[in-house]
Amino acid sequence: MSEQHLIIGGNAAGMTAASRAKRLRPDLSITIIEAGRYISYSICGLPYCLAGLVHDFKDLIYFTPESLRNERGIEARVEARAVEILPARRAVVVEDQRTGKRETVRYDKLLVATGYRPLTPPIHGIEARGVFTASNISDGEAIAAWLDSAGARQAVLVGGGYVGLEMAEALSRRGLSVTVVEKAGALFSSVDPDLSELLQAELESNGVRVMTRRAVARILTRTNGSVEAVELSGTAQRLEADLVFVDVGVSPQVELARAAGIHLGPSGAIAVSEHMETNVPAIYAAGNCAEAIHRVTGRAVFIPLGTVAAKQGRVAGENMAGRRSRFQGAVGTAAVKVFGLTAARTGLSTEEARREGYAVLSACVAGGFRASYFGKEAPATVKVLVDSRSRRLLGAQIVGSEMAAARIDLLATAASAGLTVDEAAQLDLAYAPPVGALWDPVLVAMNAAIRKLEGR
Amino acid sequence: MSEQHLIIGGNAAGMTAASRAKRLRPDLSITIIEAGRYISYSICGLPYCLAGLVHDFKDLIYFTPESLRNERGIEARVEARAVEILPARRAVVVEDQRTGKRETVRYDKLLVATGYRPLTPPIHGIEARGVFTASNISDGEAIAAWLDSAGARQAVLVGGGYVGLEMAEALSRRGLSVTVVEKAGALFSSVDPDLSELLQAELESNGVRVMTRRAVARILTRTNGSVEAVELSGTAQRLEADLVFVDVGVSPQVELARAAGIHLGPSGAIAVSEHMETNVPAIYAAGNCAEAIHRVTGRAVFIPLGTVAAKQGRVAGENMAGRRSRFQGAVGTAAVKVFGLTAARTGLSTEEARREGYAVLSACVAGGFRASYFGKEAPATVKVLVDSRSRRLLGAQIVGSEMAAARIDLLATAASAGLTVDEAAQLDLAYAPPVGALWDPVLVAMNAAIRKLEGR
Repeated sequence: MSEQHLIIGGNAAGMTAASRAKRLRPDLSITIIEAGRYISYSICGLPYCLAGLVHDFKDLIYFTPESLRNERGIEARVEARAVEILPARRAVVVEDQRTGKRETVRYDKLLVATGYRPLTPPIHGIEARGVFTASNISDGEAIAAWLDSAGARQAVLVGGGYVGLEMAEALSRRGLSVTVVEKAGALFSSVDPDLSELLQAELESNGVRVMTRRAVARILTRTNGSVEAVELSGTAQRLEADLVFVDVGVSPQVELARAAGIHLGPSGAIAVSEHMETNVPAIYAAGNCAEAIHRVTGRAVFIPLGTVAAKQGRVAGENMAGRRSRFQGAVGTAAVKVFGLTAARTGLSTEEARREGYAVLSACVAGGFRASYFGKEAPATVKVLVDSRSRRLLGAQIVGSEMAAARIDLLATAASAGLTVDEAAQLDLAYAPPVGALWDPVLVAMNAAIRKLEGR
Repeated sequence: MSEQHLIIGGNAAGMTAASRAKRLRPDLSITIIEAGRYISYSICGLPYCLAGLVHDFKDLIYFTPESLRNERGIEARVEARAVEILPARRAVVVEDQRTGKRETVRYDKLLVATGYRPLTPPIHGIEARGVFTASNISDGEAIAAWLDSAGARQAVLVGGGYVGLEMAEALSRRGLSVTVVEKAGALFSSVDPDLSELLQAELESNGVRVMTRRAVARILTRTNGSVEAVELSGTAQRLEADLVFVDVGVSPQVELARAAGIHLGPSGAIAVSEHMETNVPAIYAAGNCAEAIHRVTGRAVFIPLGTVAAKQGRVAGENMAGRRSRFQGAVGTAAVKVFGLTAARTGLSTEEARREGYAVLSACVAGGFRASYFGKEAPATVKVLVDSRSRRLLGAQIVGSEMAAARIDLLATAASAGLTVDEAAQLDLAYAPPVGALWDPVLVAMNAAIRKLEGR
């Protein structure tokens, strides 16, 4: 009988691990156990479906269990929840979500790729109909169905993270009147407040109302149980709402692993080796339930991003298949597009860097990514963060055109490689008048940081 | 009397050096000696002027001698040729190009920033009226005047480098019938032939005729001395031409330096330290007359690019002003846009890498820079070159949309930092559906190279 690999979770990390292991070892028998109705989809595409920019939720799905079996020889069981891991017996108890029937499935190697869960704040009324989070395709379908049936016209978005901002645009494009309520002083804490201000202005100029330093006290419901309004804390203000979307962060889904004696790290996510091994023999973990080494700080952290999940899944699959590859860590590179503006970031934000004890020095410049005589281009804002003791690049943020996302990657590479600002200031970047600038704004920002370091 | 700095050459390297030194040491007296009529311009913008995309040649000029004096306190003498350096006397003999008058100008520190000179092949008729190269604004003005007065309708471009390709598009946009004649088997040797093929197809689909493996035997002239046609070697073929543009490479302008006892390096350009010092006390060199360390090979080479010149100029200026900053070298990153296609490259090409003795392994993939469900995008072609012994990234090339130029920079950063393909395959790059892909084509290419290295 062939070696049995069991993978709990059928999205970025799990799917990539399964595909990679099967490719390296076609003799493996691999089964994915997925609690939801779908495997292998782009949850990041959900707002674009709601906005009508992508035709159908089905377009977000890369593989169905059928196509996965036929094309890759991997089994996937959906609506099947892993309810217990039995390390001593090398088995997992799986419950069929349709029938409630439980069975015990044996494994030779197991991957925990249970992903994250959206946080839901303990607000009265949070369970009302018309209140949503988004972590899978079914959530998207539910929001779409609600929009169609309830004829929602006013939405309140609680929290302004990646998904919250994308949903603000999506619902706005659907014709809803949208208000974003953010507890912190600024939206989108992934970038520094001076850059998130630009995003806020972009939202506002597109008709989205933004309220910062405001918390939701409770959600008011109609007699039929559906959402009616949102009440803000410390004020009598009430926002009418027939749809509420909550994006106040995520937490790693680790209950199953923890109950099986798998250690968590300081971040609360599953502690893993660079080979994606947990402390329990034959059990691996990868993706948004596992920790990753932050390459700037060298510390294990929780970075819930699909890109990191996919790479960890790949490494997990390789190690499960017997290869000793290693995951080298991440720098938290991410991007979000809101209407005409893209924000991208890598490494540590100023607040994160201070919390880590770095002596943060930053420089922020505005500049275009092509020759000036090629006509006016809305300038991008580039901010770089440097440790004034080691002169190492700690992080960077860009807000501008879609080019922002493309440009952040060279900074991610620089931060990942541990470059100093002096090294980064001399990077040999491409230039041609229609497609680049002789002194790229990234280099200008580095030179500005160096000047600050020199105190002149 | 204040310290006298003399700078020979008023473009990228010289201008940047002057500005930087003056900024650090406002007390310095800095004079630029420029043989041409203009200082401080973007020679790279010349084809875009001819194409009519940029209004006027004057738009390519950043500073005039007047604005440079008023805004930065730096003197510039144009149409003034440095004809001899007298190191023992710390002086330069300068000839006024208008009057022929010579004078001796003293320096405390001297920068040689004489740049490059376009090569002109020893072809009969090369001196005919209507035959051009391009290395300064005056060349552009002469071409524009020729186009206006001669009513040129057919152009032959000898050589298909950066400027040749841009001129092909520019002249084609002006309504000329354009033929590019290239000696080698493929245009644009900065990228591998499989990628330059894509550029050739783009030129051809825009009506430009491309002839490879063809050399020009001689240029035929009318009785009035202006060009009439081009005759190809080893064939009776004759191409009618009322404009010939030659772009067969450049050489560093080093005669002045060599005559003064300044050492040249193995590449034929001026040998410099990392502080941009020559072997002669108080004499520095920077820009396209000087060598640069190639960060992949570690060897001193001639990289005639404006980006490298500007960075070297900055370092030269800092050292001349008394700071000990160092130039860390370059990786030959460059881009060219031809009609709708952009080609970008960094590091070594396959041929360059083989010549250096590397065991080159390459992988080439096609892919889009955004989520697939965001609609069809012409896929970019990404090629990565790896040394199969050290697994280090040697170079990379991308042909695709304008995004190609933005994407090459992360590869330039990776090559510059000495990353292996294994490290580069796990780079933490930005992803959001409208602006990136979960598995960026760059990462896919790295993984393809790894698979080849593993032999599976």
